[in-house]
Amino acid sequence: MSNDLYEIIHRRRDVRGEFTGEPLPEATLDRILAAAHAAPSVGLSQPWDFVVIRSRPVREAFHAHVRREREVFAATLDGEAAGRFARIRIDGVLESTLSIVVTYDAERGGPAVLGRHAIADAGLYSSCLAIQNLWLAATAERLGVGWVSFYREEFVRELLGIPAGIRPVAWLCLGPVTRLHDVPDLERHGWRTRRPLSLARHTDRWGAQ
Amino acid sequence: MSNDLYEIIHRRRDVRGEFTGEPLPEATLDRILAAAHAAPSVGLSQPWDFVVIRSRPVREAFHAHVRREREVFAATLDGEAAGRFARIRIDGVLESTLSIVVTYDAERGGPAVLGRHAIADAGLYSSCLAIQNLWLAATAERLGVGWVSFYREEFVRELLGIPAGIRPVAWLCLGPVTRLHDVPDLERHGWRTRRPLSLARHTDRWGAQ
Repeated sequence: MSNDLYEIIHRRRDVRGEFTGEPLPEATLDRILAAAHAAPSVGLSQPWDFVVIRSRPVREAFHAHVRREREVFAATLDGEAAGRFARIRIDGVLESTLSIVVTYDAERGGPAVLGRHAIADAGLYSSCLAIQNLWLAATAERLGVGWVSFYREEFVRELLGIPAGIRPVAWLCLGPVTRLHDVPDLERHGWRTRRPLSLARHTDRWGAQ
Repeated sequence: MSNDLYEIIHRRRDVRGEFTGEPLPEATLDRILAAAHAAPSVGLSQPWDFVVIRSRPVREAFHAHVRREREVFAATLDGEAAGRFARIRIDGVLESTLSIVVTYDAERGGPAVLGRHAIADAGLYSSCLAIQNLWLAATAERLGVGWVSFYREEFVRELLGIPAGIRPVAWLCLGPVTRLHDVPDLERHGWRTRRPLSLARHTDRWGAQ
């Protein structure tokens, strides 16, 4: 393994079952958050914040919520899909070392955010770019990241005391792992296969090769 | 310069005025798009597409639209901000080697996208993660990327023949550059200064250090 960007990008996985819960050095976390904070942002608004959660009660409350939302989703599936979903883990909230919630503040840098007047979501996009920096930095540190999205934003806002108007964008589990799989969990478990890049590529106009 | 992830993350810039227009080897573009396509996505939906635009007429049409939107934004600013904005370049559409439009297809992998039932925007987030992979890969290749967001989505959809229901998320200019500045353009031009990471970091709960 090297620290080569391409190697990291292709090795990165969305981790569920491989967290060990081992401690994470503070200096490592600092490097990872600094990488996230170095992301591009519309109008240099840097609209993200990072809530680092080690508290066991907070993570347990979130985990119970995630389990309830799992049931909500499961109830929408037909028999075959429900069977496949039953074998899939959707989080490692309690097994990972800590969680990081990344948020989006639409008021940051306002009212006239340069580059956002025509695209209201452009600020939200910036928080996502920070998330990918965080994810790659963690992968470079030989850690795992798992993005949990079985939750209601309002629940997380209340759980963490996030002010109205600031939106939780991601709940990320972070920590040492036993391994990163070569194939994504959802492909290994037969949920979905990856699409060839050739189908996603167009030339000068949609649909042209 | 190395290919170290952290070095790339901190060297990356949003480029406007430094594009040279020199040609880009096809193999380089392939590596960059493969990096984008290796991004994580909710439910392994991979909802992104990439429209690679070298056509001069298409880029000229987009550039004319961007100039009009620049005027729309400028009209919202007061005198002092308008003066600062007048000195800031907002795109390198015609000077860069090519453009890449990244899109989001909400139907991809549906109807039951695993991990999206509670957060409708989770799919949109995935396209953003692909954008950041693309950006970092281009930076590793010693290229520049500039995200242009002075446009109306409907204009880009019509210009490129993007089907209804598929959303343009970013117009990215790409190509060789004379340099990447150490300080972001908007900070160099006095539009805004960067926020310290310490203000963005919270512990267990919003507002707690």
